[in-house]
Order: sequence, then C-alpha cells, then structure tokens
Amino acid sequence: MKCRVCRGPAVLDIRRHNAAFCRDHFLKHCGEQVRRAIKDHDMIRAGERVVVAVSGGKDSLALWDLLLGLGYAPDGLYLGLGIGEYSDASGHAARAFAHDRGLKLHEVDLAADFGYDIPGAAAATHRAPCGACGLSKRHLFNAVAVEHGYDVVATGHNLDDEAAVLLGNVLRWETAYLGRQHPVLPATPGFARKVKPLYRLGERETAAYCLLQGIDYQVEECPMAEGNRHLGYKEVLNALEDRSPGAKAAFVFGFVDSAHDHFTDDAGAEREGLQACEVCGSPTTSDVCAFCRLRERVGSRADSPR
Amino acid sequence: MKCRVCRGPAVLDIRRHNAAFCRDHFLKHCGEQVRRAIKDHDMIRAGERVVVAVSGGKDSLALWDLLLGLGYAPDGLYLGLGIGEYSDASGHAARAFAHDRGLKLHEVDLAADFGYDIPGAAAATHRAPCGACGLSKRHLFNAVAVEHGYDVVATGHNLDDEAAVLLGNVLRWETAYLGRQHPVLPATPGFARKVKPLYRLGERETAAYCLLQGIDYQVEECPMAEGNRHLGYKEVLNALEDRSPGAKAAFVFGFVDSAHDHFTDDAGAEREGLQACEVCGSPTTSDVCAFCRLRERVGSRADSPR
Repeated sequence: MKCRVCRGPAVLDIRRHNAAFCRDHFLKHCGEQVRRAIKDHDMIRAGERVVVAVSGGKDSLALWDLLLGLGYAPDGLYLGLGIGEYSDASGHAARAFAHDRGLKLHEVDLAADFGYDIPGAAAATHRAPCGACGLSKRHLFNAVAVEHGYDVVATGHNLDDEAAVLLGNVLRWETAYLGRQHPVLPATPGFARKVKPLYRLGERETAAYCLLQGIDYQVEECPMAEGNRHLGYKEVLNALEDRSPGAKAAFVFGFVDSAHDHFTDDAGAEREGLQACEVCGSPTTSDVCAFCRLRERVGSRADSPR
Repeated sequence: MKCRVCRGPAVLDIRRHNAAFCRDHFLKHCGEQVRRAIKDHDMIRAGERVVVAVSGGKDSLALWDLLLGLGYAPDGLYLGLGIGEYSDASGHAARAFAHDRGLKLHEVDLAADFGYDIPGAAAATHRAPCGACGLSKRHLFNAVAVEHGYDVVATGHNLDDEAAVLLGNVLRWETAYLGRQHPVLPATPGFARKVKPLYRLGERETAAYCLLQGIDYQVEECPMAEGNRHLGYKEVLNALEDRSPGAKAAFVFGFVDSAHDHFTDDAGAEREGLQACEVCGSPTTSDVCAFCRLRERVGSRADSPR
C-alpha cells in the first residue's frame, strides 16, 4: 500500500477515495478537506471570531487542531454534561489539549451553572437522554457565543454523523429538519453562525488524524447513547458503504449540492415569529424557550437564568 | 393472536399496523388498502380501460385479483423475458390465472417479437440485466397500452419495492427520479397513465393474499436479479423495519405526502423537448428512443419495429 501522492509507505487507505496516504500526506488530506469545506460554504470570513464546541472526543479535538493548522485562532468551549466517569474523562481530554497548547477554553457545567445534568434530565422527562443533551448543547453553545461575541460556532460533526442524521430525517421526511441540515447555518438575530468544517471527513479519518498527531482524546462513546437510533443508522450506512464505497459521501454531498435547497422553505416557515424567551431572552417561537422549559421540568436549582 | 376486527383466530399479524387479522378480514384489509390507494391518487376513473402488467409473481397476480374484487375489469399483459425456466414458469402462472378466470391476457415475447432476450441484452450491453429488463418493460407496457387503447397501466410494485427504489434514489439524490417516483404517473401525449395500486401493501402481505386466495404464482425470484442493489436496499430496510416497525411505510408514505412535490420540477425539466423516435415513433428526448437503441445494440433480428 503506497501513498497516492509520494508513493512512500502508506499508513491509511480510504476506500471511498480509492487512495492510501503516508502520514504527512494523510494529515495534508485532512487539512485540505477542511479548507475546502470552509471555502465552499464561506464558513469563516476574515477577522471573524470562532469558538469550537469541544467534547474531548476525536472529532472536536481534531477540528480544533485542524483549524489552528489552517491559520485560524479559535477558542474552545467545553460543556460538562454530568455523565459520570465519561464526562470526567472527556473534560480532562479537552482541558489537557487546551493547556498543552496555551489555548483558551470556556467551560460551562450543567450541574454547577444550571442545576441539572443529563441523566437527571432524562429521568425527569422520561425520554431518551440524547434529546435533552442535544437541546442543552444547541442552546448553550449559542448562548456562550453570543455572550462572548463570537461570530461562528464550529462543531465536530463528521461525514458519518451527517449521513446518520440525514438518513433519519429522510426516513421520516422531516422536511423542516432537512431544510436546516447543512454544513452552514447562517447567523440570524440572536444566533451565531453554525458551521461543520469536518463534514467531508469520516470518523475513521478523524480518529486516525488524532492518533497521527498525538492528540489524546476520550475514546469511549457516550454510555447514554447506547442503542439510540443514530447509532442504528450508522450501522445501516456502514453496511451500504461496505457494499459500495463512497455511498455515504455521495449521500451527504449529493444532498448538500442538489437537494437541500428543495427544503429551505420548509425550514424558513418555522423560523418566522421568533421572540425573546420570557425567562432567558433567547430567540424562540414560544413564550418560553425549549431550554428553559427543560430546566423548569427538571426542577433546576440554579438561581439566575443564563 | 386474534383478529383485530372480529376477535376470531388470526392467520397473519402485521407489525406496522400493530394488528392481526383472520382470513376474511385480512383479504378485506388488502382490498381496502388498494381501494384507498386508487381513491387517494385518482388512479382509475369511471369508464377507463385498465391493463395490468402481469409477471406471474405474487404481486401482479394479487393486483389483478384485487382489482377484479373491487369491480374493475382489467385485462393482463405478460412480457416474455426469455430468462430460461424462470420465464417458462412465470408465463405458465400468468396464463393459468387468466385461463381459469376467463380473462384476457395479452402476450409479448421479447425473443419472438423483438429478436432479443434479457440474458442476451445483458451480455451485449455489458451491464446488469436489470437495466435492459426495466427499459424493455417500461417501453413495451406503454406501447401495448397505447396500441390497444388502454388508459391506465397498473403495475404490482408493492411497499417494499417502492421503499427500496426510494432509498436508492435518495442515497444518490437522483432528483429527477424522485420527481417521477409516485403512485401515479399522469398520462402525457404518447404515454398512458401508470399506477401502482399495491404501494400500501408489503410483499409479505401480497404473498399471504395469494396463499389465502389459492392463487398459484411463480415463487422463485428472478435468477438474474441476484445480488443487485435493489435487493441490498431491501435488506437494509428490513433491518430498519425490524428495529422500528412502520419505518418503511413512514418512509414511502411520508415521501408521497410531504416530499415528492419538492422534486416535481426536477422531473418536469427532463420531460421537455419530447419528440417521436425515428425508429418506432415513441416519445423520446433523443432522436432514437432508449428501447430502439437497446435493440440495435443487441443486434435485433426482428424485421419491423413495433
């Protein structure tokens, strides 16, 4: 197995590209995919301030490292979810990465700052924990970005993540979600721009990137996500990819290039009629935003809304 | 297991409906699903002449029987594909069904009438046989309908078929195909209306229908389709359905109800600029239609174009 670029010994093959790479050219390949994602979708403009949502896993740490490598100077934001040892190890990885490189890492802790954690929210809402977790992340990533004047929130969603979410949205034809699923969600009043610079890289690639760059990351999957739909969709997509290498990329890139714009009206309709949440002031279509309703439901002990 | 309607002993459960049925109420259920498909999509209007594309398999024979049961009087059309014993047994089943009930069955034989068969076409085109087979069927079903003055061509595509085709179209975001995938394809100059009255019934249901009605059908799958993509998509969808009963129906019905209309413009664009095929006179976007190009390629020995 030889590097496609220099014909030296390869360390990794990527079947969907029908190519293998040596260490240096693999790292370049990753940088190139991110550079292209940013350029194609105008994700980050000159002079803009970027914050990376850092979980401590391979994707978000690879993203932070790749953005630094491309000349950006993003800060990090870590959200403590309170999921036992998993969260402890995740926080440790995020802090170590930032500390070793002298980077700024914002930290928000659900329990300390908002009086609940994800296991508690799941118990109180009698729903899968992933719902409360996603809601908390979306709200707080944006709230911190707005509070600290960041223009852009970058998240580590990779090609496998995007393919799984897309498959779920398509299987139920969630047309409003399809209209919002895109590598870039533009800024609107009260919302920073959301970007996914890793959407062209698979999770095998982000893991290899971290290994080759010597980045210590939390290798465990979230224990609360076990058996969730998203992971089921990933299995299905892996089976399709095995049969037909490139299937996942064709699915996601084809959507972005040729189908997403068919659904933007569906998403737009939901965004009309935004007002300030009566509790926290965030933009919402209800009187009280979903995050504050979640907090109320889990009997938040925090004194002041963020 | 008791019948949902009469509480008598059930013969079949349908997980996606969370229901079981006795023989009589299962047959009624099938009729009701077809009646609803026809009504919802205005598939067959009063006084219209219908021809059923009959392969001799469970779906097309169930369809013919169900349409008769609902008071329609469709004729049948059997297309001899020349796939060895498989085609022999298929033709036998179609003829026996028609003969036993005194129904009219048109027959077209690729080899006798057009000088080629599907194995020969696959060899000549160096492609999967399913491409030449689908092309031949689409062309000849329509040609026979137009020649004999039928308003409607009904095909036995069931829920599993539609889900598999939809998944394939979505995975590659074939937006023009998505715009044409619908239980009804309206008539246009030179084309009869195409309808799929079984799209609300799964293949397990059409097989059970035939068994309970004593319909002898060709039980073998086409030997040339082995390992094709379509079957792979069916496997994937069965895995999803196992995890989440109703997933297939939600996928197909959700598309028909909420997403298909997002793609009609993509399909429309391809239909513009139709002209008569220089060889056979069928509507086509090229000088010579795809069917006549296929015939030329396989070195047809037929004397006159149909």
